[in-house]
This record gives sequence, structure tokens and C-alpha cells, in this order.
Amino acid sequence: MAAWGERLAGVRGVLLDISGVLYDNGEGGGKVIAGSLEAVARLKRSGLKVRFCTNESQKSRKHLVGELRHLGFDISESEVTSPPPAACRILKERGLRPHLLVHDEVRSEFDEIDTSNPNCVVIADAGDNFSYQNMNKAFQVLMELENPVLMSLGMGRYYKITSGLILDIGGYTKALEYACGIQAEVVGKPSPEFFKSALREMGVEAHQAIMIGDDIVGDVGGAQRCGMRALQVRTGKFRPSDEHHPEVKADGFVDNLEEAVDLLLQHADK
Amino acid sequence: MAAWGERLAGVRGVLLDISGVLYDNGEGGGKVIAGSLEAVARLKRSGLKVRFCTNESQKSRKHLVGELRHLGFDISESEVTSPPPAACRILKERGLRPHLLVHDEVRSEFDEIDTSNPNCVVIADAGDNFSYQNMNKAFQVLMELENPVLMSLGMGRYYKITSGLILDIGGYTKALEYACGIQAEVVGKPSPEFFKSALREMGVEAHQAIMIGDDIVGDVGGAQRCGMRALQVRTGKFRPSDEHHPEVKADGFVDNLEEAVDLLLQHADK
Repeated sequence: MAAWGERLAGVRGVLLDISGVLYDNGEGGGKVIAGSLEAVARLKRSGLKVRFCTNESQKSRKHLVGELRHLGFDISESEVTSPPPAACRILKERGLRPHLLVHDEVRSEFDEIDTSNPNCVVIADAGDNFSYQNMNKAFQVLMELENPVLMSLGMGRYYKITSGLILDIGGYTKALEYACGIQAEVVGKPSPEFFKSALREMGVEAHQAIMIGDDIVGDVGGAQRCGMRALQVRTGKFRPSDEHHPEVKADGFVDNLEEAVDLLLQHADK
Repeated sequence: MAAWGERLAGVRGVLLDISGVLYDNGEGGGKVIAGSLEAVARLKRSGLKVRFCTNESQKSRKHLVGELRHLGFDISESEVTSPPPAACRILKERGLRPHLLVHDEVRSEFDEIDTSNPNCVVIADAGDNFSYQNMNKAFQVLMELENPVLMSLGMGRYYKITSGLILDIGGYTKALEYACGIQAEVVGKPSPEFFKSALREMGVEAHQAIMIGDDIVGDVGGAQRCGMRALQVRTGKFRPSDEHHPEVKADGFVDNLEEAVDLLLQHADK
């Protein structure tokens, strides 16, 4: 593999995944991943552009940012690209009225959306709301529609919380796709549209940007397909087999965000 | 399409799906599909061999047969091919100790199976037991295994109960497959092994047998892939689009089991 200097040349903007990179989600607000508080602070002082690009769809942006600030991170809502606002834009543009299969906590993100007489289903990381009853309700709404639209806020397989790995939204979306014989529209990583909106908000071109995430497919593969570079951290949901993934080859692996930032501050353009 | 006489020539054995063909499952023991009580009785008097071939994995065979007998059907446990006993045979042969993601009602079918220190997961139609918590438990067991084995008792997309369509096991199996990056082994329709065991138990060859079911993929497509003929009834989960399925072409469509039996008694060998 090329030297880091070559791999990181020309980087002007950094997209940071949140869960598994900054902190591990979990009871009581989660737990900071060692070194990441200072790493974010150094990155923001460096002159590189920074944006947080998350598939978090179980918490509102406000709640998420509040939790991170409480842990000590320098982050504000306006720096975060997350699926619910992107979904709301699309719903409005297309006149879609969703049935929401979401966590109670994130329902407020859809306050301005008409949810009467649904003509689509929006699925987010609903956590405990992924009951058989709620899944059936979403299934039945879709089966009643002539042209069923299922919008999925991400397609993550699983993520890490402080107590271990737990199921993310992706499997539940697959379940509805299979039962209804349809394909979901993904809003969130690895959708190219989503990465592109994060790039626009950051004001850099894809070839000048690098993604740092813990998900080999959603973060690394997705960003690379948009023309970005991408590093995987060995924290969060990282598993050793990711380094030999049959389809996705990261531009590099680092032990954690701290190491990624060390390398970036040595080698990236500033 | 050829005349019925040609399509049904040489049939000596009939495999009957249960839910959606004999009755619609539901609260209070379900509801007989009009004409099917007499149709089963006539078929059994006709000299054709009859076997019930179901993917029912939410109820024990004993419970299922009790329910059907209560509704007036002439049926005994020994006439039913269902996934749990087939799964138990495989588990014993391969020394597998399952974590069971099943309905409480069907747990007794696994009484003779060692479930300590699980080295595989068996998923059945768990109904309300498909909670987020139980799905996570199954996911975590699979992720801990070096060679994860997921055994799925059927792959149905949905089925009809008296109150409407509800999710079957298939979507939940797809969810675990996606989250874990694995492929399930299916025990039940449309697995060829399962159809073959029903044929063996009935004592007829595939080319002498016909399947009657309400599922275009699981019943009709599965049976045809084993060399059987298959009719779809327009009851249960049947939807008009099934008659134009892109991949599966039934050997015929009938309004219900009564019509199927009328045709069989006119045209099949006896």
C-alpha cells in the first residue's frame, strides 16, 4: 500500500462518522472512545473542514448533539448531516405522507410532515419499537399501496453499544422488502445522494474529502463509490475480517480516530 | 394451456397445504374455507394418496391437528409433514444445539433437543416473540459463532389470518441473514428435501404428485422444482398478481380446494 503521505495528499475536508468513532452509544449517554475528544478538537483547530456524517436515526439531531456535548465534544447541530432532515426534504418534494416506523425519540424530526392517510412508509432505527405488531402495521400499509414506497434511513447491519453489538435498521428494511417484494429507497449512508449533500454542506469536492468510519460497507464503501477516500477505525463495530472484505478495500486502517487525526495532521493539505 | 385431463393425468398423490387452503388461521382457532371440509373428505375417500404439507411453525403439530379436527377436518398427526420434526432430525444428525427463536407454543416440539451452550440458531414463525430483544439475542448468538448456522423453518413472506395479511418468518430470516452476513438453511417449503420427505411419507414419485397451495413461490414453485405439478388456489394469501408471476407458472389456478378436488376426481388416476 502507498505511503500515508501519498494516500492523504490533497485532503481538505473530513467526514466523521459518530457512533463507533467518537463514542459508543449505550445506556446513560454512551461512552467516549479514548482519544477522540482531543482528536476532534485538534481536527477543528487544524484548518481542515470537518463535518459529522451519521446514520443515527434513533435520536433527534438535538438529542444526539446534546449527548455528545455532554460527553465533552465540540459539536453543534448545524455541523451534522443525518438522515431525518434529508428524508423530510424528499417527502415534501414528492408529496409523500409517511407512516412512521421510528423510535419515539425521533418522531419530532417529522413534526412538519403530514402523516395522515399514508402513501409511503419511513423506517428508521426504531429500536424496541421494532415489535412484531409495529412491523405488521408497516407491512400492511405497504401492501395496501398500489405503488409501495419504503424509505429507509440507512441500511446498517449492526452497531456497537457499550453492552455489545445490536441490530441496526438494515435487517428490518430487508424484512419488509422481502415480505412486500419491493426495494427500499435508502436515505443515509451509503446512498451517494447523502454523501454528496454532506460534501456540499462542507464545501469540498469528493476527491478532496476523506470519510472516517467504523463500517466497512456503509462508511468506507459508500464514500469510495462517491469518489472520496475512506479510512476504517478499529473501534465501534470494526471486526478483524473487515480488513479482508471481499468487495471493499479501505484506503487505510487506523486503530482509532486519534491515529487517523495524527496522520491527517501530518499529511493532509491544510 | 392444456386441458385439465392432460394436466392432471397420472396423478396418484396429493400434497395439501393447510393454512389458506383448508382454513384461514386466526383468533379463536381460525375459520374453515368454504367447501374445504367436504373436499378433504372426498379426496380421502377417492383412493388418491393424501398428505398435508405445511410450513406451520408457530403451533405444534398436536395443537394444529387438534384445531383442524375441532373445525371438522379428517386429519391426524401422522398425516402431517411440518418443519419442526424435520429440523429435529437434522439437529440430532449434525450434533447441533440450537438457540430457539420460536413461539412458546412450538417449543415442546424441541423437548428432546439439547439447547445448552448453543452452536446454531433455529428460527420459526415466532409471532409476537419476534421482539427487538429476541431478535438481538439470536443475532448475538450467531455473531459469537465461528461458523454460524441459521436454520429457518420456512421462508414464507406473509400469510392470511382472519383479520388480514401478517408477516411470516421469511422477512425475519432475511433480517438475520443480512445483519450477520450469512445464508440460512431452510427446513420446510420450498426446500426440495422437505418436499421429498413428504413424497416418501406418502409413497409416490414426484411426477405422480401434485401440490395444492396458496403460495405461488413456496408451494407452487417449490413443488415444481422437485418435479411435481402444482395448483394455486385463489384463497388464503393468493393475490391476482400471482397469476402473472415473473418466475413461477402454476400448472393451474382454481378458485378453492373444492374446485381442485372436483377436477382431480374427474381427471386424476385413482
